[in-house]
Amino acid sequence: MIRDRGNGRRAQRPQRGRGDALSLLADKPFQHTRNPFTALEPLTAEQVAAIHDASMTILEEIGVDFLDGEAIDLWAAAGARVERSSSHVTIDRGLLMALLATAPTQFTLRARNPARSLTIGSNHINFATVGGAPFYSDLESGRRPGTLADFRRMVQLAHLCGPIHIVEGLLVEPQDLPVPVRHLDKALAQFTLSDKAMTAAAHGREVAADYIDMAAIVFGGLEAIQEQPVYATIVNANSPLRFDERMLGGLIGYARHGQATVITPFILAGAMSPVTLAAAIAQQNAEALAGIALTQLVRPGAPVVYGGFTTNIDMQSGSPAFGTPEGALALLCGGQLARHYNLPFRGSGGLNNSKTVDAQASYETQMSLWPAVMGHANVILHAAGWLEAGLVCSLEKFIIDVEGLAIMQRTLAGITIEPETLALDAIAEVGSGGHHFGTAHTLARYRSAFYMPLVSDRQNYDKWREDGAPDAAQRAHTLGRQLLDAYEPPQLDEAVAEELAAFVARRKLELPVR
Amino acid sequence: MIRDRGNGRRAQRPQRGRGDALSLLADKPFQHTRNPFTALEPLTAEQVAAIHDASMTILEEIGVDFLDGEAIDLWAAAGARVERSSSHVTIDRGLLMALLATAPTQFTLRARNPARSLTIGSNHINFATVGGAPFYSDLESGRRPGTLADFRRMVQLAHLCGPIHIVEGLLVEPQDLPVPVRHLDKALAQFTLSDKAMTAAAHGREVAADYIDMAAIVFGGLEAIQEQPVYATIVNANSPLRFDERMLGGLIGYARHGQATVITPFILAGAMSPVTLAAAIAQQNAEALAGIALTQLVRPGAPVVYGGFTTNIDMQSGSPAFGTPEGALALLCGGQLARHYNLPFRGSGGLNNSKTVDAQASYETQMSLWPAVMGHANVILHAAGWLEAGLVCSLEKFIIDVEGLAIMQRTLAGITIEPETLALDAIAEVGSGGHHFGTAHTLARYRSAFYMPLVSDRQNYDKWREDGAPDAAQRAHTLGRQLLDAYEPPQLDEAVAEELAAFVARRKLELPVR
Repeated sequence: MIRDRGNGRRAQRPQRGRGDALSLLADKPFQHTRNPFTALEPLTAEQVAAIHDASMTILEEIGVDFLDGEAIDLWAAAGARVERSSSHVTIDRGLLMALLATAPTQFTLRARNPARSLTIGSNHINFATVGGAPFYSDLESGRRPGTLADFRRMVQLAHLCGPIHIVEGLLVEPQDLPVPVRHLDKALAQFTLSDKAMTAAAHGREVAADYIDMAAIVFGGLEAIQEQPVYATIVNANSPLRFDERMLGGLIGYARHGQATVITPFILAGAMSPVTLAAAIAQQNAEALAGIALTQLVRPGAPVVYGGFTTNIDMQSGSPAFGTPEGALALLCGGQLARHYNLPFRGSGGLNNSKTVDAQASYETQMSLWPAVMGHANVILHAAGWLEAGLVCSLEKFIIDVEGLAIMQRTLAGITIEPETLALDAIAEVGSGGHHFGTAHTLARYRSAFYMPLVSDRQNYDKWREDGAPDAAQRAHTLGRQLLDAYEPPQLDEAVAEELAAFVARRKLELPVR
Repeated sequence: MIRDRGNGRRAQRPQRGRGDALSLLADKPFQHTRNPFTALEPLTAEQVAAIHDASMTILEEIGVDFLDGEAIDLWAAAGARVERSSSHVTIDRGLLMALLATAPTQFTLRARNPARSLTIGSNHINFATVGGAPFYSDLESGRRPGTLADFRRMVQLAHLCGPIHIVEGLLVEPQDLPVPVRHLDKALAQFTLSDKAMTAAAHGREVAADYIDMAAIVFGGLEAIQEQPVYATIVNANSPLRFDERMLGGLIGYARHGQATVITPFILAGAMSPVTLAAAIAQQNAEALAGIALTQLVRPGAPVVYGGFTTNIDMQSGSPAFGTPEGALALLCGGQLARHYNLPFRGSGGLNNSKTVDAQASYETQMSLWPAVMGHANVILHAAGWLEAGLVCSLEKFIIDVEGLAIMQRTLAGITIEPETLALDAIAEVGSGGHHFGTAHTLARYRSAFYMPLVSDRQNYDKWREDGAPDAAQRAHTLGRQLLDAYEPPQLDEAVAEELAAFVARRKLELPVR
């Protein structure tokens, strides 16, 4: 449609061959993303106060289990009421609020590539890959238990795709490795195949110590990483009202070294909390704040994020339900509460229950992404690759989600209002009833004027049929394979690479392999 | 998972058999929908002023074609500068703003069923079906030119599905009927198969007159419909800067009788406007306001809606591009501008470019629905059934979109914060580490606690495979067929039905059938 007015020749179009997947990422580079819109907030100030009061009552009168001796000691020393036989703690609101006061409102999460270090807080929006999927799936190999090769492949894609800010450390579970050493190969892959910010695993003290040691190798020593965190690791409450030993080992192990933790109650309303959303949110608030307070007991000032992962259970199947109105509202309330306490917020984008990369996968994903972004979640987990209630990390879903995130980023970039973009001259030049294809204004700008799709097909029906009528999942598969073919690892100091490899080798010998 | 605590029996679950599609709609009834969230607004006050000023300059210095003698007479009489030879009008901002002043800020759109009459304005959100698709598609019959049977089928579905507020009068084009009489059968179908609010066709004076006559038959005479509009009909500007004869015949025909018009410039940036979004929005604003002002010249106080349908052209294929960042931003800006002028706003949900009901269809749809809802569009057109850049009305897409709209409605309903829903007793009863499946609080509420999906599948992988691994489109097809089997027409006074039929029969004899 673009013609040069002067001589009627077809103007050159940007090439977009199917073999050129990398070039499709060119206008979707890594970029720091802020949300300029006012956050969507579902609660009145009175409702925030009512939820706060309910949470404080939960902590004061009902209490929380902390299944870890050191955590119990810390609470006892701080003046909380501790019942050692049951590892049960009740916490007065005065103590709790005093502990929250030392948590930073925002912080920098350092990446191996300094240009990719992230601000966590305010209206900064950071997208993380899916985490914790036991299965991997792509259209070629089908759905199967994850492997280290799958984990490495997904880290490569995460490195390549601009809209991804954070590589989740549990991406897809390498079930082909013995459990006690998996974290070593995962961390090695993250550090060598990507230069982006990352999360680690809160799987007890020993695992945390290994992650800390590896980060110290990469970032120039323990002191350096204590100054500025390099991990923002998910610590789940074992809801209702319990933190288990493994998670607490992680919380303490990371917080002690100034690493960020993301304290996230895992609440499916109707199972881990009452069915009423108000109760689920009050309970989430109590659990999150209790965990956050503990990080400040471990190390005052330790960076920490208020995490929300509240949705409902499906009362028919007993499954968790994702992309639901309840999940969206819980996300928006969570963000509003985190801001009330001046804490960064973590939500989830990309959640869905679909077993295949279809319309359901997409509408549930968007129903989770939009509230996460518009609720100003500073860390948006599971934003790419999540399928089947999180059981599956899908190659095609990952690519499609990257498109969704890129579209969102471009939307958040807003519009430029100035005489040149208002273009009254061009409007006058064309006048009534003409078209703008060949104006100087158009020709000077059309290459970069609009978002260029990655997966979306805008051909006409006949052309699409000629091409074999591929659906979005099939196109995403092709793109994903092409991107992996084009992958090149980011630079890493050779001495660091060797030291990392040696560390992993040594620890594999030391750790008991069941 | 639900057990009655007392005797360990499995509590009765709400039945959700595949054969019971109607019952799945039971918790998604027709409901008036408001958006309690603050509207997302991308523009600062200065930017609104800059766009306003650019639009005024466009109207004052560049002008608009009105290809209709009566429209030209009205403008001349009002004091605009008119060039009769080219039907060109330039309008001073003082005159324009004075004309806008008589347009109502909100109005009631009357439906045949008074409980389904709608408020158009403020934060009221009303979802309309797709309109204007030349093709129809379902998984059984494939993609083919639309027929009257398809039109009637879609009206039936629109009537049945609670989340749909408005039946778009151009839904799917009955290409099996001669062009000059199509509107008669369409209007007859709308009035007899549904009792919801509707739009008509702005296809010239004669068509408008027939719609007016039919509405007078249904609603008790011309005076009754002049008191309260029963149509909200789309009038497109033929951008750039032109209203054609057919649309103006419609605009004048409807406005004269107090019917609502939705003045909607059809702008694909890069084709009908400059490529820069600022220019596209300024031009949209100029065109929309010019059309709105004309309605007030025809009948001061005539209900009218500021319509936005601005997106970009795909510079590769020359196709319109939907679900884009540019479209989302234009939608949000449009809403903000309409509010600036105290006018109701029309946006679009459900837009997409996909040729099939896949992930692309869904993510582009959501990328259009969310800005429409969060930008407080009072009429959201194309919210169900749109596929393939609007060329296709899809049965499966319609059902899937109804799910998306129902999820959105439930989200907008917000949460209830009160002692009973905060449920501190239930939280205390279960305490740490237990579960809430069998508490009295859960058992009393679980049936209606959460949104129940229509299309979404939450079964586990094995069960889904056993069921034949249907994707969302296949499930939607089954649901759509089941709903149509269960359809029953709403009551209509027999005398009215007969008069309508007689009118249609008479007009078919009078109209020239080419």
